[in-house]
Amino acid sequence: MAKLIGIGVGPGDPELLTLKAIKALKEIDILLLPTGRAGGESEAYGIACNYIPEQVTQIKRHFPMTSNTVEMLGAIQEIAAEIIPMIQAGKTIGFITLGDPMLYSTYGYLKKFVELECEVATIPGIMSFGAIASGTNHILCEGDTPLVVYPCTDDLSRLDALLAIGSALVLMKVFRQFEGVKAKLIANGLADSCVIASNYGKPNEVLYRSLEDVNPENLSYFTTILVNPKA
Amino acid sequence: MAKLIGIGVGPGDPELLTLKAIKALKEIDILLLPTGRAGGESEAYGIACNYIPEQVTQIKRHFPMTSNTVEMLGAIQEIAAEIIPMIQAGKTIGFITLGDPMLYSTYGYLKKFVELECEVATIPGIMSFGAIASGTNHILCEGDTPLVVYPCTDDLSRLDALLAIGSALVLMKVFRQFEGVKAKLIANGLADSCVIASNYGKPNEVLYRSLEDVNPENLSYFTTILVNPKA
Repeated sequence: MAKLIGIGVGPGDPELLTLKAIKALKEIDILLLPTGRAGGESEAYGIACNYIPEQVTQIKRHFPMTSNTVEMLGAIQEIAAEIIPMIQAGKTIGFITLGDPMLYSTYGYLKKFVELECEVATIPGIMSFGAIASGTNHILCEGDTPLVVYPCTDDLSRLDALLAIGSALVLMKVFRQFEGVKAKLIANGLADSCVIASNYGKPNEVLYRSLEDVNPENLSYFTTILVNPKA
Repeated sequence: MAKLIGIGVGPGDPELLTLKAIKALKEIDILLLPTGRAGGESEAYGIACNYIPEQVTQIKRHFPMTSNTVEMLGAIQEIAAEIIPMIQAGKTIGFITLGDPMLYSTYGYLKKFVELECEVATIPGIMSFGAIASGTNHILCEGDTPLVVYPCTDDLSRLDALLAIGSALVLMKVFRQFEGVKAKLIANGLADSCVIASNYGKPNEVLYRSLEDVNPENLSYFTTILVNPKA
C-alpha cells in the first residue's frame, strides 16, 4: 500500500545504513529530500545517494530550522499538503533523515500531519551519539545509571538536576552554551570523564578527551559532549 | 592489525544490521558468542547467523547476568584472559552484542579488560528503544525536551526528579517494578502518553498504548515503556 516511509540514514558514514533502510530506498517511487537551507544540499542525500535507484523521482524541499515554531510548522504543513495527494494517488514516498527519525527530527512533525490522512512507516537509524561513542571508545552507560540526552538549546536550567542525579549525559548542540556547560561539568568533577566531538565523522572533525583542552574556536554548531561519570 | 571488534547487531530484526556490522563479520577469524545462561543459546547469534561465514571459528562463552558485580566481573576477566593471547597471536575476534555495544552492554566490561593489552574497535547498533519507537509510530523526543533512558533495576528513587523535569522517558527492564512505575506515571498524567512493549519484535510480543490497559501477567522481563509527555 502507498505510504510515507521515514528512513533513518544514520549520522554520516554510509556504512551505518541498515539493510532495512537500503531495502526501503529500493521500494519507493519518490524521494523527499530535506534541506536545512533554502536552495542548499541535503546532508542525508550525501549519505544515502549510492543506494537510491535512478528511476526514483527526487523532490527537494526546504525545512526551515528556526526557533519560530509557528513558521516551522507552517512550512512543514505545506510540504505535507503537497505529498498527501501523491500518496493517495498510489505513490510511496521516502523521507530520509539524519540519525534516527524519532529523535529530535523534523520527520516527527511531518509524520504527524501525514498520518492524519495516509499510512506512515518508520525505519530506525543509528543515532549520532551512538556512533560517536563507538568511534571514540566511550561507554555511554552501564549498570543502573540513567542516560540523559540533553539538547543544549534552552537555558540549561534542567542540567543541574540531571547532574545531581548522577546521570551519564549526551549533551547535543552544545556550541552556543559551551562555556556554561563546561563550568557545570567541571564543578561536578567531570572535566576528564568526557568526549567532546565537533563535526564528528566529517573532514573537519575535532575531538577532545578533556574539557580543559578545548579551544572553543574549533567547535561548530554540531558539537556533542558525552559524559560518563564512571569513566 | 588483529583486534577485538564489538559488533552491535540491533534488537532482533536481522534487517536492522548495518552494512558495517556485516562487513566486520566477514573480516573476523573468531566469533565470541555470549550466552546469558550456561549452556544456553546466544540471542545475538540468532540475529546475525546468516551473515557469519562458515570458516569463522565460533566460541560460545557464558557471561553471567547477575547482580553480584564481583562474580560477573570475575567471569568476564577470565574470558578476556582467554582471548587476549589469541589476539596477540594475530587473530581478529568479533563479539556480537544485542542492540548497541556502548549502552548497558556486557561488551563494555570485556572491552575494559582487553583494551589494556590489545587494540579494540566498536561498531554501533540500532538501540532497542529506537526500534520500538519506529515500529510503534512513537516519537521519542522533540524540541528541547531531554530524553532519559532509565533502567528500572534500582529503587526508582531518581525517577521522581526526572519526571519533575518534564523529560521524555525510555524505561527499561520495567518488569519487577511495573506497579511502582505505573503509579508514578499516572500521578504525572502520563497514562496515555506511553507505549508499553514486552518482548518487542518476537513471536510473543505484547504492545499496549495505555498503562490502564496493561495486564501485568502478560509482561516479560524485557519490558520497555516509552513516555513522551508531548504525545
